[in-house]
Amino acid sequence: MSKDKRWGVSMTDDLFANRVRSEVPSRLNGMFPQMDFPDAIKFTAGSPAEDLFPRKEMAQAFADAVATEGNYTFQYHTVTGPQSLREKLAKRATEKMQIENIDADNVMLTAGGQQGIDLVAKMLLNRGDSMVVEAPTYVGALSSFDMYEPKYYAVQLQSDGMDLDQLETTLKAHPEIKFLYTVSDFHNPGGVTLSVEKRQRLVELANRYNFIILEDSPYRDLRYVGKSLPTIKHFDTEGRVIFLSSFSKILMPTLRTGWLVASKRIVKQLLKLKEAADLEVPNLTASAINQYLEKNDLDAHIDQLNKEYAKRQWAMAKGIRNYLPKEVKATCPDGGFFTWVTVPDYIDTTELLYDHATPEEHIAYVPSKNFYAYKECTNGMRLNFTGLTPVQIDEGMERLGRVLKEAIARNQSSISVEN
Amino acid sequence: MSKDKRWGVSMTDDLFANRVRSEVPSRLNGMFPQMDFPDAIKFTAGSPAEDLFPRKEMAQAFADAVATEGNYTFQYHTVTGPQSLREKLAKRATEKMQIENIDADNVMLTAGGQQGIDLVAKMLLNRGDSMVVEAPTYVGALSSFDMYEPKYYAVQLQSDGMDLDQLETTLKAHPEIKFLYTVSDFHNPGGVTLSVEKRQRLVELANRYNFIILEDSPYRDLRYVGKSLPTIKHFDTEGRVIFLSSFSKILMPTLRTGWLVASKRIVKQLLKLKEAADLEVPNLTASAINQYLEKNDLDAHIDQLNKEYAKRQWAMAKGIRNYLPKEVKATCPDGGFFTWVTVPDYIDTTELLYDHATPEEHIAYVPSKNFYAYKECTNGMRLNFTGLTPVQIDEGMERLGRVLKEAIARNQSSISVEN
Repeated sequence: MSKDKRWGVSMTDDLFANRVRSEVPSRLNGMFPQMDFPDAIKFTAGSPAEDLFPRKEMAQAFADAVATEGNYTFQYHTVTGPQSLREKLAKRATEKMQIENIDADNVMLTAGGQQGIDLVAKMLLNRGDSMVVEAPTYVGALSSFDMYEPKYYAVQLQSDGMDLDQLETTLKAHPEIKFLYTVSDFHNPGGVTLSVEKRQRLVELANRYNFIILEDSPYRDLRYVGKSLPTIKHFDTEGRVIFLSSFSKILMPTLRTGWLVASKRIVKQLLKLKEAADLEVPNLTASAINQYLEKNDLDAHIDQLNKEYAKRQWAMAKGIRNYLPKEVKATCPDGGFFTWVTVPDYIDTTELLYDHATPEEHIAYVPSKNFYAYKECTNGMRLNFTGLTPVQIDEGMERLGRVLKEAIARNQSSISVEN
Repeated sequence: MSKDKRWGVSMTDDLFANRVRSEVPSRLNGMFPQMDFPDAIKFTAGSPAEDLFPRKEMAQAFADAVATEGNYTFQYHTVTGPQSLREKLAKRATEKMQIENIDADNVMLTAGGQQGIDLVAKMLLNRGDSMVVEAPTYVGALSSFDMYEPKYYAVQLQSDGMDLDQLETTLKAHPEIKFLYTVSDFHNPGGVTLSVEKRQRLVELANRYNFIILEDSPYRDLRYVGKSLPTIKHFDTEGRVIFLSSFSKILMPTLRTGWLVASKRIVKQLLKLKEAADLEVPNLTASAINQYLEKNDLDAHIDQLNKEYAKRQWAMAKGIRNYLPKEVKATCPDGGFFTWVTVPDYIDTTELLYDHATPEEHIAYVPSKNFYAYKECTNGMRLNFTGLTPVQIDEGMERLGRVLKEAIARNQSSISVEN
């Protein structure tokens, strides 16, 4: 705590708090390599397709918000944002997420899903407190959690979601764990979905071992195969699950509007934290979303997105089959934005990206290292398929296939040389 | 740090972090009493006048942002927001705030001034770190700072800003102080402005005692008398001053757009914290502000505001002279939103508000207690004059005069009884 009076390159650096003084650069640094080739194909960003934005409808919704609510919507109000939007979201949560017995006061609007993650961490974590994340997990969540300086326990992701046997062993050994973060549907970056059985068991574990679950589900509506599963929150019996969603993937990122459903006690604490962080919801934006929902069929729009994204997901699945060497494994997601690829463990995907994939084939992906609390996995990669057309995906996967085959060949020839 | 396994009314309360477990309710609680009388006059909120919002122009600016930048502005980008808006603000900072030698990368966009305050505190404060606030100070800043659990040192506000002799004594006794927060122009809630001499001396103290200054100046453009002073940041020689402004008071609160000017090293740290908190600036809103600034004369709009607010400030000054008892002192601000009233110390303004002002005269103000880190001052009140017409202000001040005269009379009769 004592102020260190070093006078170095910058005179103010010694005044920074521990949370920002760390030698480790931002977790988001280096995730997206610079690549300006005209034929570049980027599987990196988690962006929705721009040409599918409901641009005309949202522009009209902003105009309607100004016209009908006038100056009221421009003024300071309260941290909660419009009651009528929260009512609509409570209804949607019951109909689409099977979250029963809630009303508008169980719903909180946030500045994107990211603020929901940040405020939940701020509510729960003292420095050094223990929490569970998946391995791999959403990198933006790690960058929020880092700021509250927790101790991480990482639980492996399996094809049906996190390994609950490993989780239970961890909970027995570390009963001080108070918080668990999971992406339940179409995992970012893993592409997998938590099974119904595991959802139920996870809530039982939370009750038995006394922790809170943040169920982050921004991709839930974007399902291309099969039927939606009930949320983890659906099985919640003790107000331990916070369900988090967002308009960024189904309408537009620029709305910076997420929403969460939680017990009223928890919502009350989170509102106090939001007030301290940015005072209140931007009412014009919230009113515009409310207008959009009144005058348009959101689910019809989502159906359109799903039709197009299914083609892109399919192009990627075909690309994996047609071009990637047999030593490589990949998840086949039922929805969402991402496929996860696992390569032989002698390949470091960060080195491969900078030494071969980008300079030689003009493609980019996000290396696995970025998605682990302790950066321990170096032989995976996240591929986004929603931001590219099927033709671009096919071409990009062919190039990725070449990069991987050459890496495997290099390894085999180096083994021959050693022998 | 250990998890407390109490099973009480709510099963999750024992999992909350220290920062939200405190018994003290939110600092903003009880600041604005419920009052639904048809003749109510509220001096409480720090709201700009709704009828002066540039509603038509901002609606056009949103339409222009959609039309000219199309889908680009709806997509994910980076945490920084549009370069061309930050360029305009750097230019404005030089022309209007006398902050020289800066460019767009010294400027950061925030979710209202509030987020600027929150992120600076998050950048600097470990739990238990020492900081200086003014007494009184902006209550929303205290609610941000509280979340990082600092030790506060409060320095008295004088008619020309904070008492720098008291500050220097405090710094000598507590050299571990690393952060000072001040509202430099038309203080909220104090109504006073820091003198030029004190601005210069404050920077010298920061250099000598190694701390960072957050200069919060959301009211700076709203000056009704005299000429603007150079900012504290103008005198900064070592990158120790962070200057914070906002569009909430000069355009509209709903834009939720503040901006700050700081050294590039500090901006870099703050951007990392913003990314973790809410990912990025809402580009549609930022583009709309950019469009507004390109097609409208912001300073002409500010002149209009100043013309009207000057009348309201004048109505309040007259009301103080005409109606308030001579035992009462009040500041006479040259700009901004607030007048600060000091009453005899035997009057508790919180009790007076709930027992007399609201039920008997249907008026409300914010009691002084709310503006002190340790709630030590009970005989002051903050009066807002921008949210009411001159006629309402005159009527409200007449009622406040009656409330105060009666309180003084009650005290005198109780003294007579005791004698």
